[in-house]
Amino acid sequence: MARLSVSDSEKKKTAVRILGISGSARKRSYNTALLNAAEALVPESAVLETFDVSRFPLFNDDLVVEMPPEIRDFKQRVKDADAILFATPEYNYSISAVLKNAIEWGNQPDNSWDGKPAAIISASISLRGGARAQAHLRQIMVDLNMFPVNQPQLLLAQAREKFDANLRLVDPVSVKTLQSLLVALVEWTRRLKQ
Amino acid sequence: MARLSVSDSEKKKTAVRILGISGSARKRSYNTALLNAAEALVPESAVLETFDVSRFPLFNDDLVVEMPPEIRDFKQRVKDADAILFATPEYNYSISAVLKNAIEWGNQPDNSWDGKPAAIISASISLRGGARAQAHLRQIMVDLNMFPVNQPQLLLAQAREKFDANLRLVDPVSVKTLQSLLVALVEWTRRLKQ
Amino acid sequence: MARLSVSDSEKKKTAVRILGISGSARKRSYNTALLNAAEALVPESAVLETFDVSRFPLFNDDLVVEMPPEIRDFKQRVKDADAILFATPEYNYSISAVLKNAIEWGNQPDNSWDGKPAAIISASISLRGGARAQAHLRQIMVDLNMFPVNQPQLLLAQAREKFDANLRLVDPVSVKTLQSLLVALVEWTRRLKQ
Amino acid sequence: MARLSVSDSEKKKTAVRILGISGSARKRSYNTALLNAAEALVPESAVLETFDVSRFPLFNDDLVVEMPPEIRDFKQRVKDADAILFATPEYNYSISAVLKNAIEWGNQPDNSWDGKPAAIISASISLRGGARAQAHLRQIMVDLNMFPVNQPQLLLAQAREKFDANLRLVDPVSVKTLQSLLVALVEWTRRLKQ
Repeated sequence: MARLSVSDSEKKKTAVRILGISGSARKRSYNTALLNAAEALVPESAVLETFDVSRFPLFNDDLVVEMPPEIRDFKQRVKDADAILFATPEYNYSISAVLKNAIEWGNQPDNSWDGKPAAIISASISLRGGARAQAHLRQIMVDLNMFPVNQPQLLLAQAREKFDANLRLVDPVSVKTLQSLLVALVEWTRRLKQ
Repeated sequence: MARLSVSDSEKKKTAVRILGISGSARKRSYNTALLNAAEALVPESAVLETFDVSRFPLFNDDLVVEMPPEIRDFKQRVKDADAILFATPEYNYSISAVLKNAIEWGNQPDNSWDGKPAAIISASISLRGGARAQAHLRQIMVDLNMFPVNQPQLLLAQAREKFDANLRLVDPVSVKTLQSLLVALVEWTRRLKQ
Repeated sequence: MARLSVSDSEKKKTAVRILGISGSARKRSYNTALLNAAEALVPESAVLETFDVSRFPLFNDDLVVEMPPEIRDFKQRVKDADAILFATPEYNYSISAVLKNAIEWGNQPDNSWDGKPAAIISASISLRGGARAQAHLRQIMVDLNMFPVNQPQLLLAQAREKFDANLRLVDPVSVKTLQSLLVALVEWTRRLKQ
Repeated sequence: MARLSVSDSEKKKTAVRILGISGSARKRSYNTALLNAAEALVPESAVLETFDVSRFPLFNDDLVVEMPPEIRDFKQRVKDADAILFATPEYNYSISAVLKNAIEWGNQPDNSWDGKPAAIISASISLRGGARAQAHLRQIMVDLNMFPVNQPQLLLAQAREKFDANLRLVDPVSVKTLQSLLVALVEWTRRLKQ
């Protein structure tokens, strides 16, 4: 899924590598659709790849010693990334179990998230746009020692009107905000790397 | 695991039925141990049974129509309960994926938690005792329309000193607080039922 | 400001007495306007009076012994109330200093809020409607040992379109939600009193 | 109160200027004492000055046009600072009205906090050490577009044992953590400035 079409090898070396993670398991998820939109809008100076975390087993400390291979792979991808882009649905005023579960696996036995710049996007059919889920996620990121972008915020509300039947993001304001957020994430990542 | 040894049928009919849920999957979990301690300390006028939610598949809206049988069973047990007792670990300043996942299954397609009185207990090896996890859980419970007891709070800190090698709760202050909390939960449940 | 026009003495004796507190100091506040709307919509079985907390001195533990008279009066009014209705603006993702300050005075040296049923309303010009301020307020209310209504929630968004030039609430959906919330608060108060 | 004793003019020019703000109004405040300890422990490459915000009038949008002179002065000091150090008590699971009030004045009519690196310290007599207040403050800082240090965290618990009768910080572990946090703040500030 990597957007590597313009990938002269030079770009690949210097590009900011963003790992995108969706917190939704459903096929027709607005949050996964938003992440897909991000893949197409990422600036030239970056590449965005995604990782499906929706089929992981539930986190269990006792399994950390005999870690499932897909978890091992996931942790390596997190470590290799320069920045993380979370697309989080809001379930019951918090982030989804799917996302929390991926976070916990990433955090044990060593913290793969440590020091990573990050950005959050969310979509919901309500007016709130996932504000409460984003608030919880930011608190969680303090413990992970991650550095989320503050602005702009993308709290995509009333999602039904913003995507077409094929789940393509068609709302121009949201497209623009997403684009600005991705630019901000790339700049923030470069700033923290120096 | 139900504490039904004194169970004359009269008691069973009038007793407050509490369903206990641990948010930890590990075998030697302090939170599961705390829940086990609660089973032994529950007042005569109540029964406390537990349900293991640590092997559920990750919640997925698409699976709600063809719900796994253990989830169907779980939802029925939640509905049948008069009150819920959550034992939540704190992972990354929030509740565990195991617990959030059980909450999401309980909430879809219909809200099995609706209107339930509840109490929260938590244990941690740090000084905080799970304060941040409890705060997140309370926010989640607003959306679930649950009614948690306010006082007393059981934030069992420095867990290593409070349990013995067999994970029995041996700290007298914690035992007393747990006992008071269970009494408060039973009283609160009766008060809300009227 | 008390809505006592229908006050046969019988009603006054049995009515649920609600104390309304606005967290905004500004004259043309949407939140104060929302509280005023509540005064007119409160059910027959209740009375709603308001108290202006916007001119209090900043809370200081050292002043608790020589408490300003208006604070003393305020604390008595809180204690006399059967239920509390908070109208909270959202400033910087939290409740206002005006409201937090009133809460602190109410909480010291003794907790005047102890055990009170309550409801929260909020209005904002954004889409979020004060969701984050309400979340903070609910967390604060755990420490105060207050019991907020869960549903319905009134998160009045896009306030400019919901009030007329005289700050009268003219949006029919919001009027209906406010009315339902007041009914729920009165019922909840009676339920907890038994 | 500025620690300018070693202040050759060269240092003053290049030093990281930290503005310290205590959220407590009481004379014998552990949080103000902690801030005073920070003044003495700030690294050579920085200066830490404090500003007393405990006598401000309550924030009121209507007063923003005719801003009190001490507020005007405060906002300028915030703008001039390279970084902010908040010492926050925890009142009712949140930050104090004193601190929230200073934040609101700093945020209006223009945002004086915009883009500032920051760190949080807190002290409490309980085991929690202000964890919930720090969590609220971090959420507030997202809206302010501030960048708080993640680690180390200073949640000074059981304050009575950590300060002497003259409110001097005498607990060696806390002294060390405070020192590390100040170093981290200075490094973080330099990193963000580049």
